[in-house]
Parts: sequence; C-alpha cells; structure tokens
Amino acid sequence: MALKKKPVTGMKDILPKEMEIRDYVIGLIKETYGMFGFSSIETPCVEHIESLTNKQGGENEKLIFKILKRGEKLKLDTAECEADLVDSGLRYDLTVPLSRYYANHANELGAPFKALQMGNVWRADRPQRGRFRQFMQCDIDILGEPSILAEIELIQATTTLLGKLGFQKFTIRINNRKLLKAMAAYCGFAEQDYDNVFITLDKMDKIGMEGVEEELLGAGYEKQAVDKCLSFFKTVSNDVEGVRYAKELLGIYLEEGTAEDLETILSMVEDIKTADFNMIFDPTLVRGMGYYTGPIFEIAMDEFGGSVGGGGRYDEMIGKFTGSDTCACGFSIGFERIVMLLLERDFEVPSAAGKKAFLVDKKASPDRLKEVLVLAAKERKAGYKVSINVMKKNKKFQKEQLAKDGYLDIQEFFA
Amino acid sequence: MALKKKPVTGMKDILPKEMEIRDYVIGLIKETYGMFGFSSIETPCVEHIESLTNKQGGENEKLIFKILKRGEKLKLDTAECEADLVDSGLRYDLTVPLSRYYANHANELGAPFKALQMGNVWRADRPQRGRFRQFMQCDIDILGEPSILAEIELIQATTTLLGKLGFQKFTIRINNRKLLKAMAAYCGFAEQDYDNVFITLDKMDKIGMEGVEEELLGAGYEKQAVDKCLSFFKTVSNDVEGVRYAKELLGIYLEEGTAEDLETILSMVEDIKTADFNMIFDPTLVRGMGYYTGPIFEIAMDEFGGSVGGGGRYDEMIGKFTGSDTCACGFSIGFERIVMLLLERDFEVPSAAGKKAFLVDKKASPDRLKEVLVLAAKERKAGYKVSINVMKKNKKFQKEQLAKDGYLDIQEFFA
Repeated sequence: MALKKKPVTGMKDILPKEMEIRDYVIGLIKETYGMFGFSSIETPCVEHIESLTNKQGGENEKLIFKILKRGEKLKLDTAECEADLVDSGLRYDLTVPLSRYYANHANELGAPFKALQMGNVWRADRPQRGRFRQFMQCDIDILGEPSILAEIELIQATTTLLGKLGFQKFTIRINNRKLLKAMAAYCGFAEQDYDNVFITLDKMDKIGMEGVEEELLGAGYEKQAVDKCLSFFKTVSNDVEGVRYAKELLGIYLEEGTAEDLETILSMVEDIKTADFNMIFDPTLVRGMGYYTGPIFEIAMDEFGGSVGGGGRYDEMIGKFTGSDTCACGFSIGFERIVMLLLERDFEVPSAAGKKAFLVDKKASPDRLKEVLVLAAKERKAGYKVSINVMKKNKKFQKEQLAKDGYLDIQEFFA
Repeated sequence: MALKKKPVTGMKDILPKEMEIRDYVIGLIKETYGMFGFSSIETPCVEHIESLTNKQGGENEKLIFKILKRGEKLKLDTAECEADLVDSGLRYDLTVPLSRYYANHANELGAPFKALQMGNVWRADRPQRGRFRQFMQCDIDILGEPSILAEIELIQATTTLLGKLGFQKFTIRINNRKLLKAMAAYCGFAEQDYDNVFITLDKMDKIGMEGVEEELLGAGYEKQAVDKCLSFFKTVSNDVEGVRYAKELLGIYLEEGTAEDLETILSMVEDIKTADFNMIFDPTLVRGMGYYTGPIFEIAMDEFGGSVGGGGRYDEMIGKFTGSDTCACGFSIGFERIVMLLLERDFEVPSAAGKKAFLVDKKASPDRLKEVLVLAAKERKAGYKVSINVMKKNKKFQKEQLAKDGYLDIQEFFA
C-alpha cells in the first residue's frame, strides 16, 4: 500500500534547512512590527465562497481551490454547476480575510488598528519554477489612520526589517494614484482609458520609454497626449524636486495636498531611516490592483530583479466588504522571495545556542545512560542545543551526518 | 455588497490577545524542542485524497474537507460519485503528511530524524464549544530510533516545555501495548476480542472499576477472564513495583524486555526531570489509535480534566506508507488546549520590551512630526515597543483604549 511520495502538484515540503530560515524571518517580522505597535492576528484558511468570488480579487478569483459541501448538503444528483457543489474555498490572499475580520471585530480592536498577518494562501496557478500553489503571505495594515503617519510608519518598519535581515542598497519607489490620474487628465487621455494607460506605464522598467510610446500609440491614443505624457516622464526627476515640478506642471488637475504629502513622506523617510536604502519618487509606478486610492510604494531589490514587496493606501476597499467606510494603508512583503534570496546567499541563521552531539554506546547501562542524560540537561540549561544519539557501527559516517547538521562538538560516551 | 462577517461554520478568527499567547507558546515549543535537537519541518495543508483515505486515519477520514478538481479535470456531467470530483483534501492530522514527507526525503534527513511539526489541521466535526474545525496540531516525532532513548527524550523535552509554560503537578501516565496484550492473553480473552476489551478498559477513569466490569460482562466475555483482569488492576500499583509485579504475574505472556524498559523509563524520567510532575505506571491506559506497538503515554492535567497530549511508539505505521520499515515514536501536544488553559488563567506573556504610546497633535508640522519619529526610533532601538498615534478629540477614551492594550506609558506631543 505504498502511497504517492510527492506532495500535490505545485506545493512543496519544507526541509529543515529552509525551515530554520523561515522560522527566523517569521520571528524577526513579528518582533520588528511588534516594536512599531502592530498586533498579530489570524483568520481561518477557509473562507465563504461568496467572499472569495465578489470581484475584489481580480484574476485571483479564477485560481481558487474550492471545497466540496459535506454530508446532506452535497446534492450530487441535482447539482447543475460547480457553484451547487461548493460552499467555501481556500483564501487566495489576506486582504479579503482582513476585511471580514475587521467587519466582525471592529469594536474589539484598537482605532487605528495596526495588524500583522502571516499565513498561507493558495492559488491554482500554472506550476512554474519558484512559484508554488501554497505560499506564505505577510501583510501589514493600518486601518483607520487617514494621515500619512500610516505611510511613514509602514515604510519605516518595513525598511527596518529588511535592514535587520542584512539587505542593503534596495530602493523604495513611491508614487500616488491621484498624481497618476492628474497626469492622465493633464495629458488629455479620456477618463475611461486611464486604467489601460496605467497598465502600459507600469511596463516602463521592462520595455523602456520607447516601448511605452509604441504601445500607447499602437493602442490608438492621440499622439498629442502620448507626447505630453512622455515629455513629462523625460523631464521629471526622481526626488523631492520632481514632486515639486509635477505639482507645478499638473496644476489644477492635482488634488490639493497630494504633492505636499509625497514631499513630506520622501523627506521624512530620508531623515529618519535606520537602514541602507534609497527612496525615490517614481511617477511611472502603478501597482496592479485597482483598489489603491492614494500613495503607492514598492520595494525594488537589484539582486532579485523585481519587487520584494509593496503596498499603498486603499481607503475605499474595506467599506465595500463591511458596509462602513474605513481608510486603510498596507504593505505586503514578498515572504517567499525574501526566503529564496536568503537561501541563495547561504544565509546562516544567527543562533545564540551552540550545538553539541552526544553519542552513547548501545550497551550503556541504565546508570551510564542516566549520567549522559543528566549531563545533557545541564548543558541545555546552560544554553546548548544537545542531540543525544545511540552510537552507530559506522561512527565516521554518523559524525559526518551530524556535522552537516551543525553538530561539530561531538562527545562519545562508552558503556 | 456587504458580505458575511462571521468566519465559516466551526472556524474562528483569532484576536490579538489570544494571538500573543499563541505566538509565545509556538516560540517556546520551537525553542525547547530545538534544545533537544529537533528540526522544524512543514508540509502543505493539502494532501492527495488517496493518502487521506487509506484507512490509517480511522474515524477522521469521515471528516475530510475535500477539494474540487479544477479546470478540464472537473467533469461534472459524467461524475457519478464524490470521488470523481475531488483530487485532494485538507489534512486531518500531521501523521499522514509526516509519513509522506519521510518517504519523499529520507535520504536528505538525519538518522534518526527528530521532527517538530506545527500546523493547522481540519476536521468537519459537529461544531461544539471549544472545538473548532480548523485547529493547530503540534507533533514531535523521532523516526529511526529503536531504543527507549526516544521515549525518554520525548518525555523529558515535553515536560520541560510544560514546566516553562508554568504548568505544575501534572501527571504522565505510561503503559505498553505489549503489556496490555500480555494481560489480555493471561486473562484468557480471545485474541480477536483484544481491541474491544481495550476500548472498555480505556474508560476506567470515567466509569470506574465497576463500570468496566459491568461493560465487559455485558459484552458477553467469560466471567473468569473478567475477574482475572479486574483482580490484576486491583492489586497492581502505579509505580516501578507495579511493573515488577506485572512482569511476574504475566510471565511468559510478556515479551522479554518490555517490563525492564518500562522500569527504566519510569526511574530515568524521575531521576532527570526538570519540571514539577508525577510519572505513573497506568496499566489501564490504552490510547485510541490502533497503530501503537510499544510504550504509550499521556499527559493528564487536573485543571483541564483530561489529556493535554500523548503519544507512543508506532514501529509499523511509517512502513505502511513508505514501503520500508521505520521505527518511530512520537508525541502530540494539545496546543489548543494549552492555549485555552493559559487564556483561562489570564496568562500574561512575559515581554522583554516595555510599551510606550506617543500621541501627536493632528496639526503638528512636518518638523515636529520628525522630532517624534526620531524619538520613537531611538526608543525602539533601546528596546521599547512604541505605538505612534494621532491625538484624538476624545483623548481620555483614546488613552483608556491604549491602556487596555498595555500602553500605560503615554507621552503627548503638541503642535
């Protein structure tokens, strides 16, 4: 009755070496955000199918692992479509659960509520290298804080975390959805085209200025609008000066306070930063999800060649779930990517405890075994990790194996 | 478009207060077993449906959350039964995944392999107070160690953990499946009746000696066998003496070494223990699952009125999954019960970090805000948890709320 050894398609077993890194990163995340006043929360992995299919999740809604109804509720004979068979599914992100959680418990939570969520999510994506169908997400959100204190603290906490993990010279790109819209209006794009124009702009770092120009013209937008847009990107700089220039240029198209807030965030983060990174104003930054309403940001890491996290303000989303308006700003950290980067650079988890292995003769008397156990208890109390093992015939091989697991200090106890 | 606020039936949202305790317990478990040389591992929450329905899981196999096939693989028109619709399910325990994991990775793992697994499992049980359909399990297993060093280390590590959590005066009950069988043979029960007799014996602490007698006689077993059995339980003591008495009485029915091993475990654990507990020989201990082959143990805690964990040796189970024999001994800790007990006794998580709240005037200038943020960074570096908040109109209420979250040291920063 030997069974399949491999995990289900697209999911993976985690070996001790990777697990050690994961546990370390999880610990550091909880500790760091804890220092900033965030509280850990958790929701079930299973959510109502209605919450998962209400159009807030975009493409992810096509990738849901759906759960069959149980017992009498499952009526296979009369079922006409999939929907008749399922009542729930595995969550595909942590935003839907956060919204439901907040709606369910707002009275019991602080205001503003600073939440840290870490948990697995599932997406039935086409399996591909480095992407799995079960993966850990890490979301940090501040609900109920309308001021840019939220943005600043989120960026400060997240960059502090990355610094503690040994990352350096990464870049935080920041933009504002309102500035993007003002820019589109100023250039003369029609309002119904904004989202499609933004999708093309978002490709700037992949296809370059010429690629964007080509794609916009190819899509049939007015040459004048495209020219205005590109000339803006060519002249604007990636710093506070760039923000001021944008404000002047976009004039009445830009909502009051937008540029000033961006300026404050940029200079404040620069002034108080505790890690080695660069923060830039990037007017081409779009961020995929349509629900953002204000500042948006992304962490770019050269070594990874892409984003290892990002987020922004989404003041209108929670309300759609809960029925009452709640402003919100959040960050999602690419936990799996960070672990991958650490694995690739052979990251060694800093461990306070030294490791000792005790090898005990198979024929040791109970009294002799007791001696060993008492000594082990003493060493553990003194802070050592002690692995006790029965001595094998092939002692050389056994010691090599232990050394591979970090047990270099090996003591032998004969009968 | 307001959605359901409650989680799906039988599952629960975890509030910050409970989460703090859970995180603390998880951290202590990882640290403590780490000191004993255990490695953390993880497997996907989703398993092949074949692995979940191969009869190793007993009653739990009736409670599986099954996952619908996706895309073209889902053929609703031609599906005749549930099995045609599903290809996987949520795990109902961590033993099935451990077996599959070990079969998949044995070459990459230490020998013996000491594994610590913590993870959610799902059972579509009838919802009832204090029992949830998603709950955390915590399993500790030593694979590939045939000697009682495994049992002793598992008990030593687990009792050390409970001691660190502040539990006292709990009891470890120990027995051996082989002793149970020898006893049944000695009394004259037929071999095919053993399992049913054991099920009745297992109720001893609930229905008492008379209840057991009544039930056994009611089931039609020979009065002579029942008398012999009860007379054994009446005369045997709960200590090393009791083991010796059992050995003498059961004579040739008992496999050589069984009593001696029990004796060694009992006296060794007593000699080296680091926590305040009692270990007793309990010849009526059965443990539900049929797969145990040697020593079995259970942790009884008076305050809880039941078991908060248990385990034993199961030398034949892994082989059924993997196709090659592997001896194994494990412990399952009642994580949810432990968290419940800690919540009930208003357990305060020991925190190294003090908590400070900063209230900033809404009208504070960027320069003033910067001062506050710089101070916060300094305090955090010095080890304080600092929550920065915009000062509200109802400052008294705001302070009360913060105090409820443990922020007693509140500083105000005016514009």
